[in-house]
Order: sequence, then structure tokens, then C-alpha cells
Amino acid sequence: MNYSESNQPHTVIAVDAMGGDFAPDEIVMGAARVTMETSINTILVGDKAKITPILDKTEHRSNQIEIVHTDQYIVNEDVPKIILSEKPRASMLIAAELCGSGRANGMVSAGNTGAYILSAAKNIPRIEGVRKTAIATVYPTRNEKKRDPFALLLDIGANIHCTAEELVQFAIMGKIYASDVKGVKAPTIALLNIGKESHKGGEILTQTYEILSSLKNLNFAGNIEGNDMLKGLADIVVTEGYVGNIVMKTIEGIAETLSHLGRYAFKRRFVWMLGLMALSSGIKQLKQITDYSEYGGAPLLGFREIVIKAHGRSRAKAIANAIKVAAKTHRDNVCEKMAREIAQYEQQFHGDPVV
Amino acid sequence: MNYSESNQPHTVIAVDAMGGDFAPDEIVMGAARVTMETSINTILVGDKAKITPILDKTEHRSNQIEIVHTDQYIVNEDVPKIILSEKPRASMLIAAELCGSGRANGMVSAGNTGAYILSAAKNIPRIEGVRKTAIATVYPTRNEKKRDPFALLLDIGANIHCTAEELVQFAIMGKIYASDVKGVKAPTIALLNIGKESHKGGEILTQTYEILSSLKNLNFAGNIEGNDMLKGLADIVVTEGYVGNIVMKTIEGIAETLSHLGRYAFKRRFVWMLGLMALSSGIKQLKQITDYSEYGGAPLLGFREIVIKAHGRSRAKAIANAIKVAAKTHRDNVCEKMAREIAQYEQQFHGDPVV
Repeated sequence: MNYSESNQPHTVIAVDAMGGDFAPDEIVMGAARVTMETSINTILVGDKAKITPILDKTEHRSNQIEIVHTDQYIVNEDVPKIILSEKPRASMLIAAELCGSGRANGMVSAGNTGAYILSAAKNIPRIEGVRKTAIATVYPTRNEKKRDPFALLLDIGANIHCTAEELVQFAIMGKIYASDVKGVKAPTIALLNIGKESHKGGEILTQTYEILSSLKNLNFAGNIEGNDMLKGLADIVVTEGYVGNIVMKTIEGIAETLSHLGRYAFKRRFVWMLGLMALSSGIKQLKQITDYSEYGGAPLLGFREIVIKAHGRSRAKAIANAIKVAAKTHRDNVCEKMAREIAQYEQQFHGDPVV
Repeated sequence: MNYSESNQPHTVIAVDAMGGDFAPDEIVMGAARVTMETSINTILVGDKAKITPILDKTEHRSNQIEIVHTDQYIVNEDVPKIILSEKPRASMLIAAELCGSGRANGMVSAGNTGAYILSAAKNIPRIEGVRKTAIATVYPTRNEKKRDPFALLLDIGANIHCTAEELVQFAIMGKIYASDVKGVKAPTIALLNIGKESHKGGEILTQTYEILSSLKNLNFAGNIEGNDMLKGLADIVVTEGYVGNIVMKTIEGIAETLSHLGRYAFKRRFVWMLGLMALSSGIKQLKQITDYSEYGGAPLLGFREIVIKAHGRSRAKAIANAIKVAAKTHRDNVCEKMAREIAQYEQQFHGDPVV
């Protein structure tokens, strides 16, 4: 990805300094790195007594970093639903408030996903016309001919089940994110299904297929099956959160499983085990890729400001990339473009833009 | 698996000789092999002019093989729905008729899955009380401590969406199949979901969770996520066909994807590519395992006679195993056991066994 250095001086990204397996150290170091490489301003939300010593020993431009103090923060064990009442001053909630009030133009957290979605939903309005927000993630494909060998999958868990219109909106948001942020021209969009034929998968998917086929400014590639998804036959794969979440976690789990299968293989065939052992470093790299450190995390699409969920295991580099992606998304007016295209679609199908 | 040689003399398995990528040669050779190794009788359904020359050059016991001739058969390109009217004498339909009429005690086909399900549904009654049939498949896990490092996933595509009661019945049928045919004692059962908590995944899954928890003779292990599925934390994973199909195809597609990623890796890191190259033979073996040649195919559970779908790429060995599994399932009265346990469950929850 190309992180241009021409960031407008006033792009401000709120960063949850307390969320993630390596918080606050790696989060603060990531923000510090951003100030050295770009003109992006960051607001670190979290425990000032912990953040300051890390900043003190990390190279950074202090005029681009602000600390907003709070001593409450969410841990992975917290049940998302009760967080809002029990931890009203949690760092990710305050980061979301900064976005909602206009002080920040986007936010990044590597913390508890469920709580993060609720924090955003409570404080940041949805894009006009958007029925549901969606989490998108990148995954590696084997289409090495493409400029971008990764593809975008959404939703991976902001919702469980979806209507056809919600899935269509996911396709539109995914298209704009992939073309503007990932730089894929006229990205192809496919619907995850149990067969290629348009009548497959039940009523909702059949209806979604029909609407997507009829949209002129959308490069719809039809249905895609589980195995073809990994071939990179589409730049964007659309599905409901229940399926997307299970598929994404299955892919994440495979690398680990492959290496463990080696032990079983031993009893069966020695050569096989050797092959698995030889791959172990490759598997680690594959895992790093699915950790989306390069792509700066998974965007929560549908809010008026960009909301990026960095992986829980994010290190400084991944956090820095997430902040840069958030800034680029703001600078390129991605959310405004989504609003425009969603309105066009609603007008085409319902006569009036949804307000 | 232990294929005991004590098959009762009169177990008869109908075999669709014309279905599969290597039909009729490998199918006929598989049936021939069974007659040499067991006392199972097979009925080969298909083109006699093609079957006879293969049998002539293959060692077999002729008193255990019968040919039922037809010159119609299903190809993969056939649309399942119109097959029944256009090809009423197709080999897999006749095989199903043989089961329905009691001449055969089970059937095996490596042909078109959709057509096969319809053929069975048209000719073989469902087990009393069973609401929907389901396709089950085995997949490799990395739990090498278990006697059986494979697990059973169902449904993988006989249905799209399911009610809670249908999912519960899948769990019961899976349990009996895993314990009787695969030989796993008190198999653990899990529900594929987007989180471990009982309230996850929407109304149907919450309800399913509740019922499964309340069943005494069922070893329910709770919800399982995509990544944990591959760890082998459960012997049986239950899900609706839409999700099961996509997950299974994703797993099947991964091995191929990994090897192709190697080329992309080349540009990034040479060592990684070497690891991937070294694994290629291991990947091929992994694919063979997911081809279920060892386990004799994917059973369609819920019919009164056992219906086995062998993989399209099945060779003689896989077909022979599928026939042996079908015979063992019949001999062990697996379908009767399912009927009994389904009736118990229905009585517990509805007061009367469903008829």
C-alpha cells in the first residue's frame, strides 16, 4: 500500500493506548513512529502515568501527540454489553467520543472487538442511509498476478444474519474501501455461497445476487464458493457476520493446525513430517500476514468517521500502519463517498434516499 | 477404522458404477476388491457393456457381484432438479430404488451430490421422526492424543438453514454414526458458532445450545469457533448446511492455496518459498485425507438405509472402503439406533414420538 506523505496537517487520529496484548508499550511506540514519518496528529487515550514514560524513551514529535488521560480501560475478559455502564470512562469509549465530537477524524484500537463496536456505535453516527455497520478484513489469496494478492472479506462479525439490502450495502462499502484505501481499480465483488448458480443459498442470497447484478457501477462477479475464495477470484467477498467470522477463524486456525498435524504424520510417513517441519517458518509468516499488520487492521465500515480494529497481537508497526490507514481514509473522504453511493443505491431501489 | 470380516452373508450394497471422475473402471475395481476381502454382496448399477470387460480383467468373486443394467447415468454438469424427469433410469436412481425396495441394504455413489440426495430422497424413506437428512464429512484435526484424530462435521450441504430441532437431530445422528461406525466412545459434540458463550449466534443457535445442554445421553461440549474446530476439541461439529459447506470447502481449498502462495513468497522471502516447496508432497497427502478415502466417504444421515457419498475423485480403494462402511453401518443397525434415539428425544421434548 502507498502511504502518501501528503497528509493534511490537521488529520487527527484517536488511539486507544490501553487496548491490545502489548498495550500500552507497543501502541504508544506505534503512535510515536507515525509522528516521525508523517504529519498526522494522534491523541493517545489512556493512563498518562503509563504513557508518558514510554513516550519519554521513544523518538517522537511532541507537537503531534496529545494525551487524554483516563484510568479506566477494557480488558479482553470484559463482557461487552456491561462495559458501557461499568466502565463509562474506558479509553476506547473516550476515543470514540473524540471522533463523535469532531475532535478526531478516526480512531484505532487493538482491544476487545465487541466492546469496540459498542463504543463506536454509541458515539459515532452511522453514515446516512447505512443500515448496519460491518467489519472487513483482508486475507491472503493465491492470485499472484493481481497487483494486490489480498482480498477483503466482510462482514466478519459485527452482525449475525443480514437482509439482502444490508449485504448489498456491505458490497458498496467494501468496493469504496478497496478502491480508495487499498488502491484496487474497479474491484470485483463476489457473494460467498454454496454454489456458483444464482439460485443457490436460499431467498436472501438469491435476492442479493439479483440486486448486485443490476447495479451498474459495481463489478459483480457472482457467487463464490469456499475453495474459490482463496484463489483470489474476487477482490471483495461479501457475507453475513456469522459465516464470515467462522470462515476467517478457520483460515487463521489452519496454519497452526498444519504444523501440529506433523506429529500425527510422523506415525504415518516420515517424509511428510519433514515437509511440515520445513514449512514452519513459512507458516509463521503466513500467520503474520493474516494478522493484517501490513494492512493496518480491520476497518469497521459504516460509521461517519473511520474506525480501525487492529489485531490484538499488534506491535508498533501494525499500530502505525493502522493510524496511517485511518488518516488516509479520512483524507480521501472515503466515508463521504460511501454516503453518496449508498444514497444513489437507495434512490435506485426505493425512490428516496434513506435518511 | 476396523472393518471386521464378520459381515453377515446377506449384506447387499448397491453401487452406482457410473458416478465419479474415474467411473466405471475404479468403481467396478473397488467393488471387485470388496468381494475378495469380505462376504459383502454388491450390485453394480450401470452399463453392462462397460462393466463386464472391467470385471473380466479384475480378480473378484462372481457369486458376490450382480450387475443391474442401465444405459442412463448422471454427469456432473446435469442440473439435479431436472434429472429425475429427464433421466428416470439413471444408475444412481436405480441404486436408490434397490435400497427403497429392500433388495439392497445401503448404497454408494461417487457421482453428482445434488442428484444423489434427490435420488435417495425420492426412493428411500427417512428414519421415523427425522426432520431433515444431513451430509456428514470427516476432517483432520491436530489432536494427536485422540484415538481418532479426525472429527465429523455435519451438515455440509444437504440443507441451507436449519431450526434448532433439526440441528439437535443432526447432533444425535452424528453421535451414533461416530460411536458405531468410527468407533469413538462417548464422542463430544460442539456447535459451530462465533463465540464460546451460550448466548452467541442468534436465536436458533441459543435455543440449540439450550436443548443440547439438557440432553443427558449426549456429551455436549458447548460452542466451538472456527479456529478451535481444527484443534480437535470436539469429535462432532454441528452446523447448518450453508455454513458447513463453506467451511469444508475453505479447508479443502487451503492446501492448494498454500502451495500457490509460494510463488508470491518468492518475491518476499526466499526461505519461505523453500519451506512451501518442501511441503508440497505433504500437502498432497493432506488433500488425500480430506478426500476421505480412508473413511469411505461422506454419509447422508437420516435415511432408513445407509447412503454413502464417495468423493468424486475416488479410486478403487476409496470405493471399497465406502462399501465396507455401508455394510458395517447396516450390520450394526445404526439407522435403527438413530430412530430409537430420535424417538426418545422427541418424546422428551414433545411428549410424543414424531411419526
